[in-house]
Amino acid sequence: MSTRRTVFFVSDRTGITAEVLGHSLMTQFEDPGLRQVTLPFVDNPDKVAEVVEKAAAAAARDGVRPVIFSTLIEDELRAGLNDADALVLDFFDTFIGPLEKELGQKSTHTKGKAHGMANLVTYTRRIDAMNFALANDDGVTTRHYEEAEVVLTGVSRSGKTPTCLYMALHYGIFAANYPLTPEELELGRLPQTLEPHRRKLFGLSIDPDRLVQIRTGRRPDSTYASEQQVRAEIGQALDLFQRYRIPFLDTTQHSIEEISTTILHKRKLKRHFL
Amino acid sequence: MSTRRTVFFVSDRTGITAEVLGHSLMTQFEDPGLRQVTLPFVDNPDKVAEVVEKAAAAAARDGVRPVIFSTLIEDELRAGLNDADALVLDFFDTFIGPLEKELGQKSTHTKGKAHGMANLVTYTRRIDAMNFALANDDGVTTRHYEEAEVVLTGVSRSGKTPTCLYMALHYGIFAANYPLTPEELELGRLPQTLEPHRRKLFGLSIDPDRLVQIRTGRRPDSTYASEQQVRAEIGQALDLFQRYRIPFLDTTQHSIEEISTTILHKRKLKRHFL
Repeated sequence: MSTRRTVFFVSDRTGITAEVLGHSLMTQFEDPGLRQVTLPFVDNPDKVAEVVEKAAAAAARDGVRPVIFSTLIEDELRAGLNDADALVLDFFDTFIGPLEKELGQKSTHTKGKAHGMANLVTYTRRIDAMNFALANDDGVTTRHYEEAEVVLTGVSRSGKTPTCLYMALHYGIFAANYPLTPEELELGRLPQTLEPHRRKLFGLSIDPDRLVQIRTGRRPDSTYASEQQVRAEIGQALDLFQRYRIPFLDTTQHSIEEISTTILHKRKLKRHFL
Repeated sequence: MSTRRTVFFVSDRTGITAEVLGHSLMTQFEDPGLRQVTLPFVDNPDKVAEVVEKAAAAAARDGVRPVIFSTLIEDELRAGLNDADALVLDFFDTFIGPLEKELGQKSTHTKGKAHGMANLVTYTRRIDAMNFALANDDGVTTRHYEEAEVVLTGVSRSGKTPTCLYMALHYGIFAANYPLTPEELELGRLPQTLEPHRRKLFGLSIDPDRLVQIRTGRRPDSTYASEQQVRAEIGQALDLFQRYRIPFLDTTQHSIEEISTTILHKRKLKRHFL
């Protein structure tokens, strides 16, 4: 019988910090065989007691005690969680002490700060950036490129849209994207619309086999998805990136997070918030 | 002279885990007056040496030593970072030991796992969910509601679109959204299109004053943005949510993260990945 262990992400609010941190740590283990359970909004002693019960049930069922990643802020709730039959790893408990000492301040113990409504300026920037990405997606309009901080370009389905949306939601970046069509690629030069914005361009490329697979999923047996077409488009796009010295990234092996942070890094774009 | 301290988020890959950890912790301090700098892709000793130099420069300029939140995986790089004139809080160093002991396994020390390309199934789900959200945004079509896991509804500009996109990108949730128009609200009953999907509905509400402000930003001096119109729409929408027992949330004081995780929690939706 293979052991299957339960991991809980416990938080008094969204659970996102606990998820991100716990998930990061667990990815450092080879196939740990986990059942992952997020328990958000644990904000009173009764809910903590429920978590303790769930931990006991998991321990009984799994035959091994669970791991609990916690970001509970209140000392009282945290103390309750320590009663659980589990390895409890508490992020605030561990780091807040050294930080208080270093900053020479007591922490405020305020809930919901990490992923709450930071302030109206930040919130508005975020929504505006998302609307900008949606309005300037896929070359539908190029009128607002003056306002863009970055303009992604690449062949159809190279990952432009999710990257623009991610940069907007997470960093407030105004990102537009412009698809390189077969017709434009044939011309062998940068589309005129992009010329005035060369310093904002960032290219996305992708492995031809992977792109054939993706496009086949959308339009099976089409020219669009054919290997010949895909190889030609990608080759032409890469030529263009190199000739015009447009920084670019092959997205095949990269997550949206990696693509986004690479673009920020290479284009030296400032995060508008964290 | 007020002290301004520098905080670095140092990572061998995207820096996202370090940002989430450090940001969560720093929000626990009242106005700490920080300059926050993300240093991603620190993946060799030369780059670590650069970080150490940056820390020294920050200490000299600020008059106080910086705080470094690090998620470096390699022991050698981590050792180099410890030379920095800074409070170094190392995430893996702190937690990987207790976890190794508990799981009875050595960690793999693999870089880029936390926010890398997890696997093709997860990646595909994520992109499909995003495309679903875009294709089923704002009621443009209601044909695919069978496939939706949740259908958000509410008046124009109550936060439906960013919430759907966030749930798609972060949890792989298939989320559609349907705007309640003044015409439909006047009828005082649930739009017929939504009837077959009542168990998937989740309502978003918002404070009238805030909505007037948001709509005025988009269409100043319009009926759409008028207080009378906004109050009527919101009142009618709330009546509808209550009459049809649609769970709902007032989004005014909540971030997109909080709205998304509340919906998952209340609608008992399973995260498709973390």
